Amino acid sequence: MQAQAILGTSMFDGILHAAFAHGICIFILVSAFGGISGGHINPAVTLGVALVGKINPLHAVFYILSQLAGGFLGALLVRLSIPPETFQIIYGGATLCSPGVNWMQGLIAETMTTFMLVQSVLLTAVDTDRNGLAALAIGFTVLVDVLAAGNISGASMNPGRSFGPNIVGALFIRSTLLPTHFWSLHWIYYIGPAIGAFLAAGIFRFVVTQPGNIEKRNLKF
Amino acid sequence: MQAQAILGTSMFDGILHAAFAHGICIFILVSAFGGISGGHINPAVTLGVALVGKINPLHAVFYILSQLAGGFLGALLVRLSIPPETFQIIYGGATLCSPGVNWMQGLIAETMTTFMLVQSVLLTAVDTDRNGLAALAIGFTVLVDVLAAGNISGASMNPGRSFGPNIVGALFIRSTLLPTHFWSLHWIYYIGPAIGAFLAAGIFRFVVTQPGNIEKRNLKF
Amino acid sequence: MQAQAILGTSMFDGILHAAFAHGICIFILVSAFGGISGGHINPAVTLGVALVGKINPLHAVFYILSQLAGGFLGALLVRLSIPPETFQIIYGGATLCSPGVNWMQGLIAETMTTFMLVQSVLLTAVDTDRNGLAALAIGFTVLVDVLAAGNISGASMNPGRSFGPNIVGALFIRSTLLPTHFWSLHWIYYIGPAIGAFLAAGIFRFVVTQPGNIEKRNLKF
Amino acid sequence: MQAQAILGTSMFDGILHAAFAHGICIFILVSAFGGISGGHINPAVTLGVALVGKINPLHAVFYILSQLAGGFLGALLVRLSIPPETFQIIYGGATLCSPGVNWMQGLIAETMTTFMLVQSVLLTAVDTDRNGLAALAIGFTVLVDVLAAGNISGASMNPGRSFGPNIVGALFIRSTLLPTHFWSLHWIYYIGPAIGAFLAAGIFRFVVTQPGNIEKRNLKF
Repeated sequence: MQAQAILGTSMFDGILHAAFAHGICIFILVSAFGGISGGHINPAVTLGVALVGKINPLHAVFYILSQLAGGFLGALLVRLSIPPETFQIIYGGATLCSPGVNWMQGLIAETMTTFMLVQSVLLTAVDTDRNGLAALAIGFTVLVDVLAAGNISGASMNPGRSFGPNIVGALFIRSTLLPTHFWSLHWIYYIGPAIGAFLAAGIFRFVVTQPGNIEKRNLKF
Repeated sequence: MQAQAILGTSMFDGILHAAFAHGICIFILVSAFGGISGGHINPAVTLGVALVGKINPLHAVFYILSQLAGGFLGALLVRLSIPPETFQIIYGGATLCSPGVNWMQGLIAETMTTFMLVQSVLLTAVDTDRNGLAALAIGFTVLVDVLAAGNISGASMNPGRSFGPNIVGALFIRSTLLPTHFWSLHWIYYIGPAIGAFLAAGIFRFVVTQPGNIEKRNLKF
Repeated sequence: MQAQAILGTSMFDGILHAAFAHGICIFILVSAFGGISGGHINPAVTLGVALVGKINPLHAVFYILSQLAGGFLGALLVRLSIPPETFQIIYGGATLCSPGVNWMQGLIAETMTTFMLVQSVLLTAVDTDRNGLAALAIGFTVLVDVLAAGNISGASMNPGRSFGPNIVGALFIRSTLLPTHFWSLHWIYYIGPAIGAFLAAGIFRFVVTQPGNIEKRNLKF
Repeated sequence: MQAQAILGTSMFDGILHAAFAHGICIFILVSAFGGISGGHINPAVTLGVALVGKINPLHAVFYILSQLAGGFLGALLVRLSIPPETFQIIYGGATLCSPGVNWMQGLIAETMTTFMLVQSVLLTAVDTDRNGLAALAIGFTVLVDVLAAGNISGASMNPGRSFGPNIVGALFIRSTLLPTHFWSLHWIYYIGPAIGAFLAAGIFRFVVTQPGNIEKRNLKF
């Protein structure tokens, strides 16, 4: 967002662009890889799916390591694909809180957006195989989350998306050019998504899928 | 919209942002909760479904109370998630008529947009279980309604969406900073959706699903 | 488009707004009414479907009269819903060629966009009942057509959409305030869609559905 | 993009417009023609499908010739549909690298975006016939690719899309008005997509569809 302000585009344009880019990218990857790996691409999603017992915990660990590695390699590829000045202006693509946002606001934003995302994954894909729009619902949850919280915390919802760009940004941009909260608030992109995944998985296990509640359900969509 | 004007973004950008945020959010919630509760999230939708006899009236009352409570809690969460100045600039997220819009124009806008929404719900989800795109059609109706009437009345279509932000806005913003129509036109967000729901349910019961008409129908999509 | 220039928004914003509003509205109406009437809402579509023999010609005449009446009533409702000055600025919502566009460019634009639309209707909905995304493909064809030709001719593709606003605009706006091409180029919104419908229906009848070609087809999507 | 800068619209607006126009156009064409020809419309896609053995090589040659001819005819139609000055401002619709982008950045952008596109085609349409959203996933991959790389190389991903506009642009625009990289970087729009198609087809053949891997797959979406 900082970058876009510098480039002279309006805040809302930037968020529409970011929201579609992220949300629709998740849709196409879930659509393409859902049948192979489940299409997680996100440690918070893997954590949520593990917490409801739908992925082997050891597999989950390898999933998360792969996700962090993928984010790192992707950030390197960005470094190669764009002019260095642009790379510096966007701080390597790092997720950052907007000016004036404090840690609590950023943490709430990351927690709630990740909660929504993991909830969509659990209710549309894990819980049922009859929702033909599951991949779209998951991708569009990311889209909506970026529209809602992009101006607050950047709406990462994904430690794998926040990890690589910060590392690669720190490697290739002089530290004096980085904003002070480049590292100081970086923790919210791990703690927020973790809390969100726990909340969504907890509600799923102890409310949604409780035997007494399941019987009353009547799948329509 | 007022807020966006102050922030210097153009009217049309703001509406695209609002339209996608609201419309796609409805899609993902209907997609995720359609199988659990029907995914109403809107007193006008619950009223429309009750009027065509597809939900128990007592359940409908509890649905509507939950929707109002959810809107109130959501508005509180917004208060916690963004800087107080921003909260004040957007009047707590309240739905407001644009400058120059009178009560009749606002009421027509809320009535017609809600009519469209309830009609989509009845025709794509209640009337048939063969429309695989029902959740998308419902969410996208909200999207189109915001594009069409966002500049008129804010395109709430949902008393639950209008109730909470006005209450929370009044609690946390000094009343002298609120526009005069913050409360004076607030009634249109209840009466408009109610009329729209009655119209859509009436056409559905007395035209669309009349025995003589049903026989001629030939579901293609 | 003229209106948007006056309001100070950029040309491209205006087209995104118009494209989503029109395209997604067609999607939701086809999704809701496809099972009742086919969801034509457009004389050019009805003409194309009639030319391939999938609607009774007498029914088609009544469909088209209803579409023209609907467009007229819709334009009146717009007159009631927005401030008169705004109604005048947008010329009652009439479809107009952009400044500098001559009749041939406008006619090509209306012909080609309508050709695309009728082709989508015939190939995704009329020709097969196995395309679960037909309603979306049809609505999104309108969306793309507006993005492509909105700056040329306004991308009406629909005599029913062009008829009402011009009549109502002429009734409520002083004629000296209307641009000279308000009526002088109005014919392209009837002739262009008609040619487009003939082209699409002709290719469908004499190429796509020819027995020799049908056998080789292998429906995947 | 150059054209849009001249017209005074912001970079990000232009990319949203281009992304939706291209991505959704691919969706509707794949949805309409997928059942007839597979809906390739792109030499890189045809190459990828041929490399995994799902299209007869001779047919592939004719497909590619048709795609190049279609792009040429489409570019001529653009010349007829818009005022000559606009045609000149957009350089005939040619795909061009942004100022400051070197050949390596452009080549990486074209390679990676085409890789994503061919991967989506192979995983959602060629590999399975159970993905009801395949056409949407393919079109939306183009949409995301334009959002990601539109500002770098123009995100052509398609030699058929780059060929015609450059030829027609050169025929109708005086060469002194064309930018120096109009031809000098034109090769990346053939080499990049070819590399991308080879990468995607290689991973598909030697990793995704290997017998040992196939057995473990569990198609969910």
